[in-house]
Amino acid sequence: MLGFGETMNPMKIECEKKRAQLLDGARVAEEIKREVAEDIERLKREHGAVPCLVVVRVGEDPASRVYVRNKVRTSEALGLRSEHRALKAETTTEELLNLIEGLNARDDVDGILVQLPLPKEIDERRVIEAIDPAKDVDGFHPINVGRLSLGQETLAPCTPVGIIELLERNAITISGANSCIVGRSQIVGRPVAQLLLQRDATVIICHSRTRDLSSITRQADVLIAAIGRPGFIKGEHIKPGATVIDVGINRVTDEAQARELFGEEAEKRIEIIRARGYTLVGDVHPAEADQVAGRRTPVPGGVGLLTVAALMRNTLKAARWRRGL
Amino acid sequence: MLGFGETMNPMKIECEKKRAQLLDGARVAEEIKREVAEDIERLKREHGAVPCLVVVRVGEDPASRVYVRNKVRTSEALGLRSEHRALKAETTTEELLNLIEGLNARDDVDGILVQLPLPKEIDERRVIEAIDPAKDVDGFHPINVGRLSLGQETLAPCTPVGIIELLERNAITISGANSCIVGRSQIVGRPVAQLLLQRDATVIICHSRTRDLSSITRQADVLIAAIGRPGFIKGEHIKPGATVIDVGINRVTDEAQARELFGEEAEKRIEIIRARGYTLVGDVHPAEADQVAGRRTPVPGGVGLLTVAALMRNTLKAARWRRGL
Repeated sequence: MLGFGETMNPMKIECEKKRAQLLDGARVAEEIKREVAEDIERLKREHGAVPCLVVVRVGEDPASRVYVRNKVRTSEALGLRSEHRALKAETTTEELLNLIEGLNARDDVDGILVQLPLPKEIDERRVIEAIDPAKDVDGFHPINVGRLSLGQETLAPCTPVGIIELLERNAITISGANSCIVGRSQIVGRPVAQLLLQRDATVIICHSRTRDLSSITRQADVLIAAIGRPGFIKGEHIKPGATVIDVGINRVTDEAQARELFGEEAEKRIEIIRARGYTLVGDVHPAEADQVAGRRTPVPGGVGLLTVAALMRNTLKAARWRRGL
Repeated sequence: MLGFGETMNPMKIECEKKRAQLLDGARVAEEIKREVAEDIERLKREHGAVPCLVVVRVGEDPASRVYVRNKVRTSEALGLRSEHRALKAETTTEELLNLIEGLNARDDVDGILVQLPLPKEIDERRVIEAIDPAKDVDGFHPINVGRLSLGQETLAPCTPVGIIELLERNAITISGANSCIVGRSQIVGRPVAQLLLQRDATVIICHSRTRDLSSITRQADVLIAAIGRPGFIKGEHIKPGATVIDVGINRVTDEAQARELFGEEAEKRIEIIRARGYTLVGDVHPAEADQVAGRRTPVPGGVGLLTVAALMRNTLKAARWRRGL
């Protein structure tokens, strides 16, 4: 703010207006989905095959319902066959294993996805390991995790695949770049580290035990935040001009917090909070990142949209491999 | 060197005499082997079971002969049963797969190790994947690689396991430490990264495409060199006081090179070259590392000795798991 008698410095204004370029997840997701739809059409025409994805959901977790609906709808929009199996919350591990055994045996089923998290009474590890690795479109089976680590062709987890697509389709250099991943989950952090390493990035993996985090993350040309803490990555963590990929999806319900996080966009976000009780923010502080980063993914509208697109491509891949195509 | 009329500065002398503490691989290897021998004795006494390791070698590679002999001898010294199958160089992939199938089926066999590299006519990947994962004491089967990445109990590759033992038994802090691995092989670099990450280190993986390597490696409290280039890691790559683990084993035949590499030890090494044609050096420049590092592993006498000790422990582990103990 200008005080009385101060003159405006045009350089300073320009500086403050600096905003990281937003990487449009929707555009890349649509691009991938269009390609998948074309490939499915060709598979149908040339081989009479229609890939089929079965999505299994257990219990009534509202977020899982939304995710599953989204996956089924997208499948259908792209010309995949899809089945949705909704099981009651009381389903036992044995019942779920029986269902999976049946799906493994069905030759017309190409992809099996069990929506996680499962109710805590169910042995998640046994369930994941029961899925035929050739149909494991989530890429969570140990043998697929191993193949990814060995640099072999495999079904890789969807969010990491989506992140790589977003980088590559925006012509962001990976080879030789310093990449830093904050968060070491099995779903994002570790597999994306493997994909970056395969593409010749130098890879740094940070987590809650990392000391002096900002001095590490500030070396990254490509910084990936996947920790589940709203706005945790601030300006001090970001190398000027870096590409920042925000994997987090967190709810903000507090107006003061929204004002602090969203800068110019704050009023719009506060309206959203007033209308539906919350707005979404990632693991990156958007207003601060805008001042330092060269490019960043928005939340919503960034990485989240790519996960389903990558799932569609994994299903197509599984369908082709299973048919030796 | 002191010029005419210069006085010696005692501080400087002390500084130049500074030498990194050597981490004794032999001591730790003996410790592990003693524990394994005791556990084998107990297994025999309490369950009447004698673990059995089968080592398969194809062709006449002289280095492989030495490694295999070493593995077989150590097995016997520790009270393991061991079999050595030496196959002719012309062995086909199918013949080797048949042999492995037979070993998989034999209930008395706990560990199967196929010495790599195989002659290039043999499909190494098919051979590795044919080994029963429960008997895969090298930890190279994709499902074991996956389990390692997932943080599950598994048979992990021997050299990385040996490195962790060496660090832990010398009370070198891993949790929260900055660790840096130079080299991303499937046998050392990638699996040791997983083991360090599980133990809460921040992990940096560098390789031939890494830019400004020394600025990255110089952050490491624990620096691991596994690239196969003699004396590549120099003083400039090492953080003062760091622990440097040298996985390389390279031959030096040139006396001038030996003089440059070995500092005070050079004359001894040159005698070795004169006696048998070569001396061994790791991927770390020993004379330079001595000036900067806090601790380092020697070559020979460092990590190399731990690999076989870790193999013995993996065989014991496999024997226990297969018997549900």
